[in-house]
Amino acid sequence: MKKSLIALACASAFAGSANAQSLTTYGIVDMGFVGESGGTAGSIDKITSGAQSGTRLGFKGTEDLGNNMKALFVLETGIAADTGGFSASTASNIAFARQAFLGLQSDAGTLTLGRQYTPFFLTLNGVADPFASGLAGNAQNLIPHSGIRMNNAVKYASPIFSGISAEVAYGFGESTAGADRASRNVGGSIGYSDGTLNVRLAHHRANNSTTGTTDDTSTMLAANYKFEVAKVFAAYSDNDVQISGRGKSRDFLIGVSVPFGNHTFIASYINKDGRSATNWDARQIGLGYTYALSKRTNLYAAWASIDNKNGAPYTVGNNSEPGTGDRAVNLGVRHTF
Amino acid sequence: MKKSLIALACASAFAGSANAQSLTTYGIVDMGFVGESGGTAGSIDKITSGAQSGTRLGFKGTEDLGNNMKALFVLETGIAADTGGFSASTASNIAFARQAFLGLQSDAGTLTLGRQYTPFFLTLNGVADPFASGLAGNAQNLIPHSGIRMNNAVKYASPIFSGISAEVAYGFGESTAGADRASRNVGGSIGYSDGTLNVRLAHHRANNSTTGTTDDTSTMLAANYKFEVAKVFAAYSDNDVQISGRGKSRDFLIGVSVPFGNHTFIASYINKDGRSATNWDARQIGLGYTYALSKRTNLYAAWASIDNKNGAPYTVGNNSEPGTGDRAVNLGVRHTF
Amino acid sequence: MKKSLIALACASAFAGSANAQSLTTYGIVDMGFVGESGGTAGSIDKITSGAQSGTRLGFKGTEDLGNNMKALFVLETGIAADTGGFSASTASNIAFARQAFLGLQSDAGTLTLGRQYTPFFLTLNGVADPFASGLAGNAQNLIPHSGIRMNNAVKYASPIFSGISAEVAYGFGESTAGADRASRNVGGSIGYSDGTLNVRLAHHRANNSTTGTTDDTSTMLAANYKFEVAKVFAAYSDNDVQISGRGKSRDFLIGVSVPFGNHTFIASYINKDGRSATNWDARQIGLGYTYALSKRTNLYAAWASIDNKNGAPYTVGNNSEPGTGDRAVNLGVRHTF
Repeated sequence: MKKSLIALACASAFAGSANAQSLTTYGIVDMGFVGESGGTAGSIDKITSGAQSGTRLGFKGTEDLGNNMKALFVLETGIAADTGGFSASTASNIAFARQAFLGLQSDAGTLTLGRQYTPFFLTLNGVADPFASGLAGNAQNLIPHSGIRMNNAVKYASPIFSGISAEVAYGFGESTAGADRASRNVGGSIGYSDGTLNVRLAHHRANNSTTGTTDDTSTMLAANYKFEVAKVFAAYSDNDVQISGRGKSRDFLIGVSVPFGNHTFIASYINKDGRSATNWDARQIGLGYTYALSKRTNLYAAWASIDNKNGAPYTVGNNSEPGTGDRAVNLGVRHTF
Repeated sequence: MKKSLIALACASAFAGSANAQSLTTYGIVDMGFVGESGGTAGSIDKITSGAQSGTRLGFKGTEDLGNNMKALFVLETGIAADTGGFSASTASNIAFARQAFLGLQSDAGTLTLGRQYTPFFLTLNGVADPFASGLAGNAQNLIPHSGIRMNNAVKYASPIFSGISAEVAYGFGESTAGADRASRNVGGSIGYSDGTLNVRLAHHRANNSTTGTTDDTSTMLAANYKFEVAKVFAAYSDNDVQISGRGKSRDFLIGVSVPFGNHTFIASYINKDGRSATNWDARQIGLGYTYALSKRTNLYAAWASIDNKNGAPYTVGNNSEPGTGDRAVNLGVRHTF
Repeated sequence: MKKSLIALACASAFAGSANAQSLTTYGIVDMGFVGESGGTAGSIDKITSGAQSGTRLGFKGTEDLGNNMKALFVLETGIAADTGGFSASTASNIAFARQAFLGLQSDAGTLTLGRQYTPFFLTLNGVADPFASGLAGNAQNLIPHSGIRMNNAVKYASPIFSGISAEVAYGFGESTAGADRASRNVGGSIGYSDGTLNVRLAHHRANNSTTGTTDDTSTMLAANYKFEVAKVFAAYSDNDVQISGRGKSRDFLIGVSVPFGNHTFIASYINKDGRSATNWDARQIGLGYTYALSKRTNLYAAWASIDNKNGAPYTVGNNSEPGTGDRAVNLGVRHTF
């Protein structure tokens, strides 16, 4: 991470306000071995980029505008370091597919425009899942989200009042002239955190048609609590998602992460209760372990297994790949810069 | 903007010359709302990247070679921050589509090789248009240019003598072996500036065939003058451009920009006189406003309307999009780093 | 090149180890004129990016993990600066096609995972070829290598013992589930260097099928020796490569590079002895010259000619292009940052 603070000479028009600007080049490189089995294609052994955290290169900055106001931006590319390509898990050949937005921040909150995370995914990733969407065992594949990121999005994040904060986001459809409703995204979340208890309620709706009859909706209540020796996680989600014929489901997750010196042990159990005609049920158990070589570099190991019922097609993935079978093991190293 | 000066240790072969090198990471993020109407598709509301200035991330550097000689380079990518993709206005999936060149500068001028702006566009953008090619109201859509940038280009820019400077550029065709004439580009400009008066004459020819019968040509005389309270702009252009069936036209523009503290008011009027059989005439009036939050960040608002005659198809665009209708409004924020 | 050392505050878990991290933004911009003739398409004149060294932009870093251990990564994009695109010589639309890997280094060697150079190419480029794979006259086109880079590769490089070092690399196939053997890559090299004498033996096998009947193999013994006034090069290679119908061949190269102040003169002669039924033989003579304007910037000129026998289709290329004819001339400038 390279950061520089440049104090700009005050132009006469801005005399009296100190304008300081920072630009940071940052990223993650995550490489490891992934073994998958139990899929129709048989066992697959491979080198994968981003099993724990998607490999990325980003450029971000802030500028102090005076009066407690700030401009801020993020341009973040996703990289498949195993082949040198852009990360396939976000969108093929999209340069800054992870995040690209510009915003203004003041005492009244933060308004950002661009390609951004949905409030629902930030809740799944940041509050519900002890794997934080990474490694075999993470909750992305089973707990559906009708979109990790929103294009053409306007997002407002409130300031924090007594530990309570909220955000709402609207992504313009833009798919058809005169029919903005099609493919628009709307989401929001409200949460409370006091450093020990962390609770958040999130909702997302992704329109797939102008009629609204096949819209995806997901609602989740998630919480975690930091005990002395462990952090425990629980979440419940009610979903109606059309992708891959999933339909309606009710999902719950319980999990734990146990830090011990440079070691961290992670475990979670997810139960997916299909509520559509297919009645696709599934249960996943995931185990993970990370060992910190430094504050920025860690080794990781993870294993997960899914028990599919009634022909359910769920697979164990990782942060960057959806996976091919109902069992997977990950071994790798992650470096943050 | 992050800049570092690295004084290189003088190697024995270069003893006596102080070789200093700089590398700058820079860019712009521009996001806003664009509302378009009057097109065949009806009204469109959208979030757009780069309405005032194309969102970009660049890397540039110079090296002092001694004897008043410098090496310089620019690698600049265009970004559609609303979706995370590369900027569509330049070229799809081209990584460094905005600019990519290397050059040498001495007292005798500057020679650069690579993908570069045409002298014609630099004149339209830098001398003629009070909107500087940005926002609804800018001159790009009506005053044709047979290319903003040239591939495979060798450009020579003269030093400035008594305010007078010139540049010539040749872009190799390379489209067909043995037929370099096809798709080659040739352009040049000559100008005078004393800080108050700014005049420039530019010409561009883009070959579209080996026979030369359908080449695009554009010639423009542009000027601006900086009064105490306002800068006034005027330009006349004679064109024969085949793109979208435009054919021959004579265009003129008058415009003004009025700075007032942190506020800037911009207005322009463009008259396009079609000279081909279709007789496509059009008039555009554009109004713009920017408010500087700092030297690097501004808000913007703009509105423009086109009056098409004889079935002319011209649309109000912005810096990054050609537009869909004969009216558009822009509201947004632009941050430079 | 911009480098920053950030001494991280030691977290309690890492007390006693000093974790320092560096991030370097670096690259090369190389632009010039290339004239090719003797091909079926006739003469071609063009502006080319990367005739001597591929134009690139890279981000690399290391972190000291204590105990003589380091984390290291490279993310390096290839750029066609003549058009702004990604470098075509590596892979179309691949963002970080040149190199993308993460690794750990200790006293026991360096283990890296990702997209990486093959040991064979590093030997051809670094030991055998006085042109170092650049300019007309370089050895890439005639001495076959069944791949410059390997995807999904695990590479181990030994430490140096008494001047002796070795590396082995395995690139997972991943092309078909359950058939990893297809399209996997395996390579290795072992070498000796004392600063004056440099010898290396390299082998590479690229699988093109699950049956193994059409695999590409290349084996090379290369050496160079640094005399007072010149460095001489010699290499012998035994190949069986299916690309473009090449088949079996035995190739040898002799070459020399002569530094003289800021001037460097380069020459090489390559004889290719086709050993398949087509009996495609060829001889190439290459002459090159570079003039250093500074430690980072040089001018270059090169010429090469191939004498093809029995209908052999070999062309004179450069670092970034395979070429179109049996003669080529290069003139350009290269800047390293």
